[in-house]
Amino acid sequence: MKALVSLSGGVDSATVLAEMLYQGREVTAVGFLYGSKHNSFENRCAVKLADYYDVPFQLIDLTSVMGHFSSSLLKHGGEIPEGHYADSSMFQTVVPARNIIFCSILSGLAWSVGAGEVWLGIHAGDHPIYSDCSPKFFASMKDTITLGSNGRVCLEAPFLHHTKAELVTRGIKLKVPYELTRTCYKDQELACGKCGACCERLEAFGINNQKDPIRYEIQD
Amino acid sequence: MKALVSLSGGVDSATVLAEMLYQGREVTAVGFLYGSKHNSFENRCAVKLADYYDVPFQLIDLTSVMGHFSSSLLKHGGEIPEGHYADSSMFQTVVPARNIIFCSILSGLAWSVGAGEVWLGIHAGDHPIYSDCSPKFFASMKDTITLGSNGRVCLEAPFLHHTKAELVTRGIKLKVPYELTRTCYKDQELACGKCGACCERLEAFGINNQKDPIRYEIQD
Repeated sequence: MKALVSLSGGVDSATVLAEMLYQGREVTAVGFLYGSKHNSFENRCAVKLADYYDVPFQLIDLTSVMGHFSSSLLKHGGEIPEGHYADSSMFQTVVPARNIIFCSILSGLAWSVGAGEVWLGIHAGDHPIYSDCSPKFFASMKDTITLGSNGRVCLEAPFLHHTKAELVTRGIKLKVPYELTRTCYKDQELACGKCGACCERLEAFGINNQKDPIRYEIQD
Repeated sequence: MKALVSLSGGVDSATVLAEMLYQGREVTAVGFLYGSKHNSFENRCAVKLADYYDVPFQLIDLTSVMGHFSSSLLKHGGEIPEGHYADSSMFQTVVPARNIIFCSILSGLAWSVGAGEVWLGIHAGDHPIYSDCSPKFFASMKDTITLGSNGRVCLEAPFLHHTKAELVTRGIKLKVPYELTRTCYKDQELACGKCGACCERLEAFGINNQKDPIRYEIQD
């Protein structure tokens, strides 16, 4: 079965890619350029991951589209706040409808190239501020894609009901090269270790009693 | 209430724009460049319509995204077939997930600019080959957008349960300047009068005992 994966270069989608290959899918990885501050860093990681797993990588350019959007995650937005996802300040990092847009484009692309599945890294640990990452949203998006493509494309999210720590547990078992991934929201080479994305990542490795293999600005 | 309309420059979206203004919405019209053969012709009409109604017009460029998609409606696709929408050959003109993608981007844009509604020209006459125009699809897409935007954006399709002829009846009442619209799928200045889109348009005016005010290659 041909399938696409939305590969951001982060921990979640890297693990999904490994899971897809484990389950025998013929994978094409797709990345998005959408003007986020960490976009060039994460896409560089996505390319490395696709290369590591020897799957084609396709980059979709949405920078002009999302140039009209408001979010502090975007280059034209405000400062990235520090702290945990649970903090209300993290709401500024929401990119309006980002996942809806990514799912839609991936579905059209999958249909065009005869791929029957689109896999996503959404998991149960995704914080409620990201309304387009909830299981309820995913179920509805899946129905919409099935109806809109007349059953040609099916959305899959294998870790929908797993925490990020559980996803990392699975990834360690699948020997995902997490040293090639990138999570930090900030516009800098080295991960800050302080933004919501870094906090959540470090916590997931901590629960697994594993040292996160990437380097951080603040070493503990 | 601020609201966006997907304005293609065709009969359906022109009528929706008129209806929105009639219902007192503060409208911004949005067009998409996506590489279809008739795109430049229809966008020119969309600009004229926005100008006529004195509403802002914003163009979203998706040509690079849809450059990867397969459809005879696109510039890199095959020939546009002639005949009625009911003909199986018209299936070639389906652009995979087009409406899903347009709805998603419009929702993100609406959220970004504080518009609570996105209005669409989907109607009951849209042929079953367009699976992303059915009432069932629309209901699901509407739910998805509501969930994904946490209730910030609501999709509206005022003619969802009306035929194209009924839509034109309403448009005539609202004095829509149909002479400024464009429907033909072909890459030519003058409407062909023979493709599925032209056939359907002519039929809708015929049922209303009205002469379609635009010029056709074949005059009857």
